Amino acid sequence: MDLNQASQEQLQQWQTQLQQEFENFKTQGLQLDITRGKPSSEQLDLSNQLDGILAGHYNSSNGTDVRNYGGLDGLPEMKQLGADILSVPQERILVGGNSSLTLMFQAMMQAYFFGYAGPESAWQQQDNVKFLCPVPGYDRHFAICEHFGIEMLTVSMNEDGPDMDQVETLIKADPSIKGMWCVPKYSNPTGTVYSAATIERIAKLGQIAGEGFRVFWDNAYVLHDLNANAPALASIADYCQQHGTEDSVLQFASTSKVSFAGAGVAFMAASPNNLAAFKQTLSIASIGPDKVNQLRHAKLFPDLASLKAHMMKHADLLRPRFEVVLNRLEEAFGDNDLGQWQSAAGGYFVSFDTRPGLAKRVVDLAAEAGVKLTPAGATYPYGSDPQNSNIRIAPSVPTVDDVDLAMQVFVCAVKLASVEQALAA
Amino acid sequence: MDLNQASQEQLQQWQTQLQQEFENFKTQGLQLDITRGKPSSEQLDLSNQLDGILAGHYNSSNGTDVRNYGGLDGLPEMKQLGADILSVPQERILVGGNSSLTLMFQAMMQAYFFGYAGPESAWQQQDNVKFLCPVPGYDRHFAICEHFGIEMLTVSMNEDGPDMDQVETLIKADPSIKGMWCVPKYSNPTGTVYSAATIERIAKLGQIAGEGFRVFWDNAYVLHDLNANAPALASIADYCQQHGTEDSVLQFASTSKVSFAGAGVAFMAASPNNLAAFKQTLSIASIGPDKVNQLRHAKLFPDLASLKAHMMKHADLLRPRFEVVLNRLEEAFGDNDLGQWQSAAGGYFVSFDTRPGLAKRVVDLAAEAGVKLTPAGATYPYGSDPQNSNIRIAPSVPTVDDVDLAMQVFVCAVKLASVEQALAA
Repeated sequence: MDLNQASQEQLQQWQTQLQQEFENFKTQGLQLDITRGKPSSEQLDLSNQLDGILAGHYNSSNGTDVRNYGGLDGLPEMKQLGADILSVPQERILVGGNSSLTLMFQAMMQAYFFGYAGPESAWQQQDNVKFLCPVPGYDRHFAICEHFGIEMLTVSMNEDGPDMDQVETLIKADPSIKGMWCVPKYSNPTGTVYSAATIERIAKLGQIAGEGFRVFWDNAYVLHDLNANAPALASIADYCQQHGTEDSVLQFASTSKVSFAGAGVAFMAASPNNLAAFKQTLSIASIGPDKVNQLRHAKLFPDLASLKAHMMKHADLLRPRFEVVLNRLEEAFGDNDLGQWQSAAGGYFVSFDTRPGLAKRVVDLAAEAGVKLTPAGATYPYGSDPQNSNIRIAPSVPTVDDVDLAMQVFVCAVKLASVEQALAA
Repeated sequence: MDLNQASQEQLQQWQTQLQQEFENFKTQGLQLDITRGKPSSEQLDLSNQLDGILAGHYNSSNGTDVRNYGGLDGLPEMKQLGADILSVPQERILVGGNSSLTLMFQAMMQAYFFGYAGPESAWQQQDNVKFLCPVPGYDRHFAICEHFGIEMLTVSMNEDGPDMDQVETLIKADPSIKGMWCVPKYSNPTGTVYSAATIERIAKLGQIAGEGFRVFWDNAYVLHDLNANAPALASIADYCQQHGTEDSVLQFASTSKVSFAGAGVAFMAASPNNLAAFKQTLSIASIGPDKVNQLRHAKLFPDLASLKAHMMKHADLLRPRFEVVLNRLEEAFGDNDLGQWQSAAGGYFVSFDTRPGLAKRVVDLAAEAGVKLTPAGATYPYGSDPQNSNIRIAPSVPTVDDVDLAMQVFVCAVKLASVEQALAA
């Protein structure tokens, strides 16, 4: 289907065919949802033993009665697991509650309102606070910035991570840029894995940025490979130590897509200075995390090897869903320019770009046929994709057959929208 | 022991006796701790069945898979339980994570930084924000105010709650007073239960206070009676509705001293306006509370009656500890003016007042003999008790025998410090 060479007549013919195909989908009364990066019920079943796993034993490795108050930064065994996951020493880890998003919000609150180096260092002391956002990116990151009134500047995502030339140029020119969002492995939604060179350049940003600069390093998919031969991720903590910029990066991870999405355990890794400031506020705001649930996780995942073995079971459930998505895209758009995407080696998404100006129309069309897609623009700050072309596909929840059906609708919607546009040109 | 009539010789004789008694305690190498309001291991054992209680069934009453993301304000069955506990309609309830302190911090953050009625209503827009703190009170409440830079003004605690004449006078005179801490039942540490008349006056403060005024109603001990014939607490929500001040009160409670102290479920009750603003920020900061743990609690406590029956088991464990405390105090100070205290009908504390100027000395002496007490001053804002006389006694954790021993040391320390003071006068 080469729209560039097609005659008006050919275009009209395609449109008629596609409209008919589309009407057929509509008559099926589909109710499919490929919007959010959630685990499926089958994936959640993998951890069902969590409830009851303690068998009446409520003491942690250091003898703590996990049922009672106390222990602001988590159990030692879970700190060790977090350390192994994020490749940092155990003393750099804080183990939180059920949401790394909450840790990120709290880390932002600390930076913005309270300051990591006393009240004078709080970002709100400045007139204008800006953040760099590689795009497309994660809507919940952008929502945090927006809630704090932080202005977001976009930078392009390349194949090896954010465009670091852009990033460095912006940061050198503007000390009011106080931070940057990063999902370094299987970036949401592009699936990009940051290269070692990119990671080292990010680690060095603390040398050129304004006072109080913090990279929010959301390693949400650090364990979430689709295949055994997963790409390695360089350690940003090592580069930071090497370049004397330890305070400039805050790392996050969680077991949300490892055990139970809503009842997992979250981790933060940070420098001693950052941890001290963060914990000072946390000591005011909390009686400590749920240590019982931490102990449950320590039993389920006694070490990193057991955790990785567990993740391969997730991969076995996810892989066929991603294969269906990629196959349908390849089949439909492999030989034309109606769409672009990257194959994902992990994470929860496939990022798809329509021809400019069509994402909203595609999402609307799919909705008409009963297939719910992430709103167009959601992957950009303020919900505004300047090209109106990016759509995030999240195939984890429906069955393989349903993903396949949803992708057929999606493909038809992309083609139809593209033909409509060509006809109107 | 009447210090007022005693001769110098008599005082010196008493001092010698008490010093000897004190030295005897010191030789015993005691390590006792009556500092914090924590449940004992026996109390925690009462809820051990929580782990495993789901028996593989992870669906809530409305069919939600509790393992996955979502559900910002909690499961319906837990909302109902919170509604029953706090005597409000279910739609006024938000069910949180494991800490009502966290909900209070978040509620303060909303008021101070983000505002309950848009950014312009945020307290930080004002030069000076003040809070009323009935004293003695709870150190963690004061710590929250201090962290936000809110100036604390103390008001006296009467037998039926805060001195409302003082409260109303202060509030009328100063619109920068933006809130007030209240623990309406078994107030920490005095054990005071607010009378209906006091509660109605608190509900009416919204009519005379400055814009944005919020009472933080920490009903931490709403269920924590030591006896079956517990004093009733009037419903502040009912009074607020009656007087059109629903937005002026935020209520909090939790199961922290009901099930597991560190792994329970927290509740907030608030007006529709307050809930909407609170949830808007929460939707940015959280993927939702741990619904698996909420479902566990719903299984353990299917209704208020089962919850109350459970609390009587706690009471059976706590009652003898409180009896020992009160008996030792009565025996030692019932016939003299060396100390004052109130008998507690519930909660976790006995509040004791030494003669003015002696609390620090008593705490130091007890520490010397191996008995750890809450630091003197902790029950006052900024850790500063102007009379230096209040000491909070928390007898829940040690065994009955250990509480008895600790109280013997305590009594000896109070007597010794009092005699020292009389000799120096």
